[in-house]
Amino acid sequence: MQERHSISDVTAYATQAFRLAGVRASQAQSAAEILILAEAMGIGTHGLSRVRVYIDSIAAGGINPTARITATAPAPALCHIDGQNGLGPAVANDARLAAQKAARACGIGAAFVKGGNHLGALAPHLFLAAEAGFAAFVTTNTAPMIAPAGGREARIGNNPVGIAIPHPDGQHLLLDLALSVVARSKVRAAAESGQQIPESWATDADGHPTTDPAKAMQGIMRAIGGDKGALLALGFDLMTGALSGSGILDEIPSKAAQPDKPQNLGQMIILIDVAHLSGAVPLGQRLDSAREILAATPGRDPSHPPRLPGERALAQLRDARENGLVLPRALLGEIRALAKP
Amino acid sequence: MQERHSISDVTAYATQAFRLAGVRASQAQSAAEILILAEAMGIGTHGLSRVRVYIDSIAAGGINPTARITATAPAPALCHIDGQNGLGPAVANDARLAAQKAARACGIGAAFVKGGNHLGALAPHLFLAAEAGFAAFVTTNTAPMIAPAGGREARIGNNPVGIAIPHPDGQHLLLDLALSVVARSKVRAAAESGQQIPESWATDADGHPTTDPAKAMQGIMRAIGGDKGALLALGFDLMTGALSGSGILDEIPSKAAQPDKPQNLGQMIILIDVAHLSGAVPLGQRLDSAREILAATPGRDPSHPPRLPGERALAQLRDARENGLVLPRALLGEIRALAKP
Repeated sequence: MQERHSISDVTAYATQAFRLAGVRASQAQSAAEILILAEAMGIGTHGLSRVRVYIDSIAAGGINPTARITATAPAPALCHIDGQNGLGPAVANDARLAAQKAARACGIGAAFVKGGNHLGALAPHLFLAAEAGFAAFVTTNTAPMIAPAGGREARIGNNPVGIAIPHPDGQHLLLDLALSVVARSKVRAAAESGQQIPESWATDADGHPTTDPAKAMQGIMRAIGGDKGALLALGFDLMTGALSGSGILDEIPSKAAQPDKPQNLGQMIILIDVAHLSGAVPLGQRLDSAREILAATPGRDPSHPPRLPGERALAQLRDARENGLVLPRALLGEIRALAKP
Repeated sequence: MQERHSISDVTAYATQAFRLAGVRASQAQSAAEILILAEAMGIGTHGLSRVRVYIDSIAAGGINPTARITATAPAPALCHIDGQNGLGPAVANDARLAAQKAARACGIGAAFVKGGNHLGALAPHLFLAAEAGFAAFVTTNTAPMIAPAGGREARIGNNPVGIAIPHPDGQHLLLDLALSVVARSKVRAAAESGQQIPESWATDADGHPTTDPAKAMQGIMRAIGGDKGALLALGFDLMTGALSGSGILDEIPSKAAQPDKPQNLGQMIILIDVAHLSGAVPLGQRLDSAREILAATPGRDPSHPPRLPGERALAQLRDARENGLVLPRALLGEIRALAKP
């Protein structure tokens, strides 16, 4: 039987770890909550393993633990957030809350973030928006790892894109994916475990496809659909970065190469208060119809028909909330050690 | 030397053709303008060749020429449009104008469309929004042509996605792409010209990759990045369709199979009035920086470095406006014939 840990205990450790690294109380708390949501949703690559990564970045001067996140409202439905290089999940959480307020008032609201950092996975932010009754479209730029359409050097991030559609029963659609064929974290994981990667994932530093994850970490991730995915990533990079006033494209430094340099990431959080749009056919019924259409579609593997994205993550989250969080022993030890003064 | 035709003359023919098919005057005019913009931007597959296609659809009962497009504002920044199965480009044009008004008032505004039809290319709608000073994110669902993630039958459209970022000098970023590896119209064109297609484009009716465009027209388009693109298309399908109350997924009938049945497409037009967001660094300068970064990126073909999407379309549009539109003689003949009572 796997050991389980209460979410509130683990949240307290992670919060305390951030506090000891000098992070303001409210930001330490919200960043810990976002990372634990990701962990509980099964997104281990963007979960509690990031506590140490973020604390290392604070130590290197790459993240400002005492940032004062500022929010202005240039128009009734628009929020402009300056994260001041603060802890990414906390900045994005503040931005989501500001966008929720605007969307509640105007039907749709958006937060444009500059001075952001790695916000964890998008899924926790999407989940929180959906739980509050908002459909969401969220994107962030990242340090370059894919080549522009027609190019052969990295200039664009893999710019994750997230979509949420809330279901009144909690069976939200939650979609969180990066525009590279796979996330860079999968290449990193393969490098750490010494496994080869498929040629379709990445190229080496010279632009040639490689099965060696160590070489791929020096090279370029490949976009979905080649040039089409690269164009989409460029569009989201500029919509996010040019409109927020953050860094764009290769203005964004790599954390690995320049750990002391603020990344000044841009993020865009668009929320729609669906209460205004549930007319003749309630939204929950529409999502149920979609689920039925997918379940009735012949699967490539007949025992696994297509599903609405988010189903598995929500089931894992419910399980973790009811029965406690399953954590690798080493990871729990790391968080507890970081939380000890 | 190629024969050139004045845009206003050709617009008058196309408008008159729609009028003779029974379309209301204002809708005939705006639909003609959208199709001619696409033609002038070099998007021939979604340009004037659609005049006859739409008129055939009106004749078949698939499009209602006398639709009364209704617009309601459930919240200050939200518009809900019922296209009532009217001419697609005209419905989308009304929706864009409603979204512009909302975005002008609130900073961001959105129109959700139900009862829509094929709206032409996204690029003309993006261009008009950018010219008016709005950044745009636009998507529409379509009849199913790709399989859901893990599935092997078509249930999802290739759901085109459009992004615009306005430049005060007119050098807007305009990005218009479908989430299939290529547009179905390229398969149709190959079928008409008797050419083979790459295996990556589509599968036949049994789900097997094919190089025969005729078999591909009976089969399934493949999404960019495989399951990732299919998930993205699903997310946009539901964000557009479930929120607007339009059809979703395989509720949308194929025009080819059921020409008399309204498609009830859903469309989402999100606009941001960038005047509110041009703070310390003006948006035009940010787009110029992006253009420079792309131009300095080594190209796969060294004589063609990467470019900002929209550059070629805008150059073609300027040329057509200054020097007249180049049109295939047969196409001009067709439009003129349709415009004769």
